[in-house]
Amino acid sequence: MNSRELRLKNRPTGTPSAADFELVDVTLAKPNQGQLLVQNLAMSVDPYMRGRMRDVKSYSAPWQIGEVMQGGAVGRVLESRHPGFTAGDLVSSNLGWREAYLSDGVGISRIADPVAPPSAYLGVLGMPGMTAYVGLLHIAALKAGETVFVSGAAGAVGSLVGQIAKLRGCTVVGSVGSADKIDYCQSIGFDHVFDYHAGDLPGQLRRAAPEGLDVYFDNVGGDHLQAAIGAMRVNGRLALCGAIANYNATAPVPGPNNLMLAIGQSLTLRGFIVSRHEDLRADFMRDMSAWVTSGQVKYRETRYEGLAQAPEAFIGLFSGANTGKMIVHLAD
Amino acid sequence: MNSRELRLKNRPTGTPSAADFELVDVTLAKPNQGQLLVQNLAMSVDPYMRGRMRDVKSYSAPWQIGEVMQGGAVGRVLESRHPGFTAGDLVSSNLGWREAYLSDGVGISRIADPVAPPSAYLGVLGMPGMTAYVGLLHIAALKAGETVFVSGAAGAVGSLVGQIAKLRGCTVVGSVGSADKIDYCQSIGFDHVFDYHAGDLPGQLRRAAPEGLDVYFDNVGGDHLQAAIGAMRVNGRLALCGAIANYNATAPVPGPNNLMLAIGQSLTLRGFIVSRHEDLRADFMRDMSAWVTSGQVKYRETRYEGLAQAPEAFIGLFSGANTGKMIVHLAD
Repeated sequence: MNSRELRLKNRPTGTPSAADFELVDVTLAKPNQGQLLVQNLAMSVDPYMRGRMRDVKSYSAPWQIGEVMQGGAVGRVLESRHPGFTAGDLVSSNLGWREAYLSDGVGISRIADPVAPPSAYLGVLGMPGMTAYVGLLHIAALKAGETVFVSGAAGAVGSLVGQIAKLRGCTVVGSVGSADKIDYCQSIGFDHVFDYHAGDLPGQLRRAAPEGLDVYFDNVGGDHLQAAIGAMRVNGRLALCGAIANYNATAPVPGPNNLMLAIGQSLTLRGFIVSRHEDLRADFMRDMSAWVTSGQVKYRETRYEGLAQAPEAFIGLFSGANTGKMIVHLAD
Repeated sequence: MNSRELRLKNRPTGTPSAADFELVDVTLAKPNQGQLLVQNLAMSVDPYMRGRMRDVKSYSAPWQIGEVMQGGAVGRVLESRHPGFTAGDLVSSNLGWREAYLSDGVGISRIADPVAPPSAYLGVLGMPGMTAYVGLLHIAALKAGETVFVSGAAGAVGSLVGQIAKLRGCTVVGSVGSADKIDYCQSIGFDHVFDYHAGDLPGQLRRAAPEGLDVYFDNVGGDHLQAAIGAMRVNGRLALCGAIANYNATAPVPGPNNLMLAIGQSLTLRGFIVSRHEDLRADFMRDMSAWVTSGQVKYRETRYEGLAQAPEAFIGLFSGANTGKMIVHLAD
């Protein structure tokens, strides 16, 4: 079968460009005994992937030059000679950035009884959804009635953080990068939303939460993290999830100049990687599936069409081109 | 009775100087009914007091210009018309920076059955000791066998952090500011000690703890915090206790430029103020009294003599003039 895949061509300096990727035609063999052939329906592009473009040891291994990249994908089994899979099964994998693949089943999970379309398993019911759930409820240990601030509030993770916090009876403040995103966040229940382009983040936070913040869910880093530290109440918790403001930096970025407040305010800053919290997956899938089914949690996708557009979709993450989850749609 | 007290004369910019303090003669009345008269035997100077010289809201209220300063002290009751105290009692208070005081007993605690000389209740058995205990065992949640790094390792807090960690079977790395302090830390059981003046903190830590750090107890901030973040193992914990490197800064100091590692390494940075952990006081007093009595924990003091030397003792904290607890001895 013919397929196409995207390979890493160059390690970018600063913001990635389309020239850093190469689209290549490949031919896949028929499955042997113990193998299955999968057509990807949708693939994920996520900010953390910027780290995999660097040749440094990190929590996810660097992509190799000239090799097909990896990332979340949802696909359908076309043909199976593997006992665990049947043609027609919906499966999730880390074998994105390609239209189809042959697999021995390792790292491939069946999605049984889906409650939402396939691409939702890359977002609200996938890694970003679990990131929001684990970060807010476990890492930041959110309590009912608290005041929560989330940056990147219209993004795949941020939009879910805000909704989960509302379900827990919290006051939710979000920062976004456009008027449309303000509207979107308000439509899903945020109490206060502002556009960070207006500047004066400390003042924005003071106005949105005059009594201060109990929890900050950080997707952005940089000025956002500094402003949040300055706005935290005593015993506040900061879940450090991402720092997209720094991902394309070409030199070390100074940290928050008010980190000393962590002492006087007894703050906890806790970084996390969702893949280290698999023990919470069953809880997450149960709760989030129920919330999506009941309509208590809403989600949105920004879709790019076809594998050739995947680099553009990925690069768009760094200019805020997405509202909700950025998805590359590959097939129906 | 005649006494002397030190008042804040100016709010310093940068490092404090003797001219920021004023030594004043005062006369104390005889105690009325319900009052007691106390002669201070020793008073404490501590790095956190630098914050009280600033006119900013913080966890401890600012000292006021022209008023006598406050701080830890241990004294002896000279005369009591208060039902809770008897002449001869040893008492601790927050009424340091003076030779004697009249009190209605509020905030004064009797030290019953002391296991060490009075000044020890300003150090190993006082606030610094409890800071080490709470920070290491509760905030950083130290586990047996881990690798711990403490900065300011020869100081009042650091020297106890190292010894408590050794009692828990840990490997202990310390940084200090002189060859004498290296010797001192080695004499109390530290496994690796280096002088930070040699530079290359990341390299020093790599050599001292090639497998990385599980816990960092931060008394210093600045380069030390940044180097420690870079050396932490996955799930490492950083207890943020002090940042003496920044206390005299006249402009905001950039934070660690590698704070993003907290995400990939799943680090927890937790600031604390010992006074918010009074629930642990009984545990601390029981354990530390036993360790001091048995000789399992040793302590040292750097003594200045007389109230007039208190400013010099305080200022000396910022140049590392002390090994162990800095004490101003006032009377026997």
